[in-house]
Amino acid sequence: MCSLLCQCFYRPEVLFKNPQIHVKNPHLDTMEEDILYHFNLGTKTHNLPEMFGDVKFVCVGGSANRMKSFAQFIHQELALPGNMDNVTDICEGTDRYSMYKVGPVLSISHGMGVPSISIMLHELIKLLHHARCIDFILFRIGTSGGVGLEAGTVVVTDKAVDCFFRAQFEQVVLGKVVTRSTELDVGVSKELLQCSSELDDVPTVIGNTMCTSDFYEGQGRLDGALCSFSTEDKREYLRKAYNTGVRNIEMESTVFAAMCRACAIKAAVVCVTLLNRFDGDQISTPHDVLVEYQQRPQVLVAHFIKKRLGLVV
Amino acid sequence: MCSLLCQCFYRPEVLFKNPQIHVKNPHLDTMEEDILYHFNLGTKTHNLPEMFGDVKFVCVGGSANRMKSFAQFIHQELALPGNMDNVTDICEGTDRYSMYKVGPVLSISHGMGVPSISIMLHELIKLLHHARCIDFILFRIGTSGGVGLEAGTVVVTDKAVDCFFRAQFEQVVLGKVVTRSTELDVGVSKELLQCSSELDDVPTVIGNTMCTSDFYEGQGRLDGALCSFSTEDKREYLRKAYNTGVRNIEMESTVFAAMCRACAIKAAVVCVTLLNRFDGDQISTPHDVLVEYQQRPQVLVAHFIKKRLGLVV
Repeated sequence: MCSLLCQCFYRPEVLFKNPQIHVKNPHLDTMEEDILYHFNLGTKTHNLPEMFGDVKFVCVGGSANRMKSFAQFIHQELALPGNMDNVTDICEGTDRYSMYKVGPVLSISHGMGVPSISIMLHELIKLLHHARCIDFILFRIGTSGGVGLEAGTVVVTDKAVDCFFRAQFEQVVLGKVVTRSTELDVGVSKELLQCSSELDDVPTVIGNTMCTSDFYEGQGRLDGALCSFSTEDKREYLRKAYNTGVRNIEMESTVFAAMCRACAIKAAVVCVTLLNRFDGDQISTPHDVLVEYQQRPQVLVAHFIKKRLGLVV
Repeated sequence: MCSLLCQCFYRPEVLFKNPQIHVKNPHLDTMEEDILYHFNLGTKTHNLPEMFGDVKFVCVGGSANRMKSFAQFIHQELALPGNMDNVTDICEGTDRYSMYKVGPVLSISHGMGVPSISIMLHELIKLLHHARCIDFILFRIGTSGGVGLEAGTVVVTDKAVDCFFRAQFEQVVLGKVVTRSTELDVGVSKELLQCSSELDDVPTVIGNTMCTSDFYEGQGRLDGALCSFSTEDKREYLRKAYNTGVRNIEMESTVFAAMCRACAIKAAVVCVTLLNRFDGDQISTPHDVLVEYQQRPQVLVAHFIKKRLGLVV
């Protein structure tokens, strides 16, 4: 392995100086073809620089339908030519992920949980590398459970923490645990908070986001198929989380932050809370209210993009 | 919490005596309504016993398209009335999972990775509980990487093991690690192997299945966005896995086995291998060959179901 890459692996700041380097894998240079299996794309079958070379903003989220709506929304917001209803799924040969490109914006679904988003991120980072993209920003726009916040609040993640409240991600590599930092880009987070202050109806805070590998027991829900703890045990855990700065809980942020940092990609996590977990576990809010909540991270990130493109001041 | 449930939590054999008990959560009895959020179903909005009361076989797999195809295939195999193309997605109000019911068979997608399948399993087990289903069998039919097996081989899982080759699943509950057994039903596995011997073109073995939380670094692939190990390191890890009995690698089996066992549900994991990992990492097999491979677990489980229903001898 090249010694520069070895040094860079634990020192992303070395890579930040060269915005063109994103992958951290010397083996890729020796491969004749790279098949991005879960995207149904490849370096021999597709002209990736032509398809994706102008991408400047990548937005990812769990639900395929939501990421299609986001692509249509961005189409409208950027006042691009053509009919926004005609956005087509670039990954249509597979149902693992959906991907839409609208001008300089890529919108991709990643399913639920760390493993699902990590497969997508490996292939996305390789795709952006093959396409020779530079200076792009990656956003996760998602939903979450709030901790001590009113439903509908948008949380821009300060630190992504694990279920022990540690700002780290443990990746098992060949049976050995490797611990990676989950630090996100402070500048982008602050810019997002500034953007929120310029919008109506997008109440936004910066706080820590806890990432769990389970929606029920892992997040202290009392309504799963399995539950061995009491209401008081649950409240105590949520209180502890709140006291360490956790404001929302979701299932992808740690690996998202860790992989982006390892590959020197500027990134932010922007999730709306669908409920306040101190008040309950089930999501019983009416469908139309939930739909409006889910649009808030989209509205915020769209405003950020428009400002960066000079479309609004 | 009731003392019987406390006892049962670590002794599933207590529950096996009463096939009607599946959930292990005393809080559920106190809930007026149970919203199965990711299925878009609920106890007040849907008559779950009427919709699902006759289910005897539940088949789950990662891809929504594949689970729709499986439902259509089962419709044909069981010679049910009506047009097999008309199977409808019961979860059509959400894109998190897809669900099809064909006679006594339920076919559901679960996405990729432990967190994604665990959300589905929590809601599925509650659904079957609310529907008062008894004596059903749960199958995971999926795809995997083979370890020392020719591509296209079907592996019926003996033990589901983690990336340290341990037959256990670690679940974090309120910040504490709980270790659960991943033992599967030996009788069902043997019956599946017997079924395979009655079929042409479904080469089948029983072996251990390793479940990882990452497709690239976690499975020793050299072609991810991040890779810090050599080809020899990879081969050594795969060799170790093989020597402990691992014959394939996928991303859901441990939590599937652990949750089914905790809830006293008879279950099996049946995955086809898409490649032999000793030969490579990328899935470059032609699409039509992959499609045929992916049908093999379906054909095997369909034969099992038909035998159980007395449709074949």
